[in-house]
Amino acid sequence: MHILITGAAGFLGQRLVARLLERGELQGHAIQRLTLIDQIEPPSSDSDTVEIYRHAVDIAEPGALGDVLDARPHVIYHLAAVVSSAAEADLDLGMEVNFDATCELLEGCRTRGLTTTRLVMASSVAAYGGDLPAVLDDMTALQPQNSYGTQKAMCELLINDYSRRGLIDGCVLRLPTIIVRPGRPNAAASSFASSILREPLNGEDAICPVATDLAMFVMSPARVIEALVHGAEVPGEALAPFRAFMLPGITVTVAEMLEALRQVAGEQALARVRHERDPRIEAIVASWPARFDIRRARELGFAGDRSLDEIVAAFLAENAPARTGA
Amino acid sequence: MHILITGAAGFLGQRLVARLLERGELQGHAIQRLTLIDQIEPPSSDSDTVEIYRHAVDIAEPGALGDVLDARPHVIYHLAAVVSSAAEADLDLGMEVNFDATCELLEGCRTRGLTTTRLVMASSVAAYGGDLPAVLDDMTALQPQNSYGTQKAMCELLINDYSRRGLIDGCVLRLPTIIVRPGRPNAAASSFASSILREPLNGEDAICPVATDLAMFVMSPARVIEALVHGAEVPGEALAPFRAFMLPGITVTVAEMLEALRQVAGEQALARVRHERDPRIEAIVASWPARFDIRRARELGFAGDRSLDEIVAAFLAENAPARTGA
Repeated sequence: MHILITGAAGFLGQRLVARLLERGELQGHAIQRLTLIDQIEPPSSDSDTVEIYRHAVDIAEPGALGDVLDARPHVIYHLAAVVSSAAEADLDLGMEVNFDATCELLEGCRTRGLTTTRLVMASSVAAYGGDLPAVLDDMTALQPQNSYGTQKAMCELLINDYSRRGLIDGCVLRLPTIIVRPGRPNAAASSFASSILREPLNGEDAICPVATDLAMFVMSPARVIEALVHGAEVPGEALAPFRAFMLPGITVTVAEMLEALRQVAGEQALARVRHERDPRIEAIVASWPARFDIRRARELGFAGDRSLDEIVAAFLAENAPARTGA
Repeated sequence: MHILITGAAGFLGQRLVARLLERGELQGHAIQRLTLIDQIEPPSSDSDTVEIYRHAVDIAEPGALGDVLDARPHVIYHLAAVVSSAAEADLDLGMEVNFDATCELLEGCRTRGLTTTRLVMASSVAAYGGDLPAVLDDMTALQPQNSYGTQKAMCELLINDYSRRGLIDGCVLRLPTIIVRPGRPNAAASSFASSILREPLNGEDAICPVATDLAMFVMSPARVIEALVHGAEVPGEALAPFRAFMLPGITVTVAEMLEALRQVAGEQALARVRHERDPRIEAIVASWPARFDIRRARELGFAGDRSLDEIVAAFLAENAPARTGA
């Protein structure tokens, strides 16, 4: 089992590598080789049993993936992307990295006859937009209101068509908002959703820029990684007629997130969240759908978090050593 | 007013040219120039007031549209396409003509700053597919089960994004099945829908390859041309948040089509239709959605045929001279 991962130096990429090395197998076959690529060389990982190749590659360069595809990977995780704010700021960059590079990857697989290679790609809730119903389902149209979502929706269509034609075996997972992300707050509009939990749990202050009745569709990092693993294993026949769908996030309000924080860390932690509404952030985040009927993903065996408390507890468990300064 | 039409030698292109010359104006401005391009040089049209340029151009060639875009057309009708059977038979050809050429057209407009140029493109009912609801509406997902529909759906997304960014002023019309097409039967799966009316009305035999309870979503050529004209005139602001939608066809069963034939041309004409079921054609045509809630198109001022009888009467009126052999 040879696995290729693009975007392997990113937050999800690094966690996926760790999880795959921990499992040691995928699709019932021992993992023998991991090829990790990203703009910068992905960090090294230790393994006695798996050959790990790490490459700094600009996937937007024509032919950039030729060598790694020549090695005929059995599973490709295509996680590399320009994020939404960057794709909005620079249309050409977004198109090159988010769309053209995916076309190039698909053509690379096609010319090499990698018809049974499972391509798992990450899409996004940002692909939804427009006059959405109160609860979305698997037949809700993608009418993205941003270039990132547009590029992802185009990739979904193309991967589905290549799969339908038997040229590749694709599976595209639309990711909910991921909480709790590790690290520091960033410029993403959704950054606060992790920040209002992470910072107080680490004894720091945070700002909540939205009304507390705002609802979001969220998933923990651990469940997203599980979904990526399952995305490589779900049978291709089960994925027809359309190979892209929303993962089973859970709907939570900001008020529920703050209450979960209070329950695990007390009033003192809650008091660290300052409420300063930011209309710019509210406008963006409120346009993201928060309620889905995710029947399809459940039928395909994808699992979501059981509760917000579970998400918070998982973050605490993972980050406990760092917090005690051990 | 300078209008560029790609696919101008096609069935719709030729009728659109005739209609525009008849009107003499578009968007309230006198038409001064028509640039007609197609793979073969479009047929000549007479006009005392409009300069007509005709060019044989392969729009899939990079830069092929440079000269005509340099002339800064105010309205572009992008009708050129590889049809569904050809796009299914040759993925590269379909991608080049149906998708890449549209990208090139959009980029050509962008680099020339044609931000107020209205781009009217034809999409198709073939963009729908998958597990469709009984009645589709404007928020039904596009999950095409053919490469032609995939390529059209990708163009819709891109034209919407370029329009949202203010780079072009796009409007994409999803066309129902067009009846009654003039000419001879062809290899298209939908060919019978025109054939079972046209041939008996011309005193010839026709084959009906499907069950008579099959429903289809149809529109007359005249109404499609009206919609293309209106597509150039509907205000851009009204087209947000998504610039592609289904035109207001009408739902008719094959039985209703045969009854309309009987009413205008009698039992003798009806007897010219031989019923020979063809499972291959039935499978394709039955997968096309036949029932739509087309609220959006109606709100935007697009009009459909009032009845099947009207469609048949219009065909008879148009083709009367030819049939009498005058």
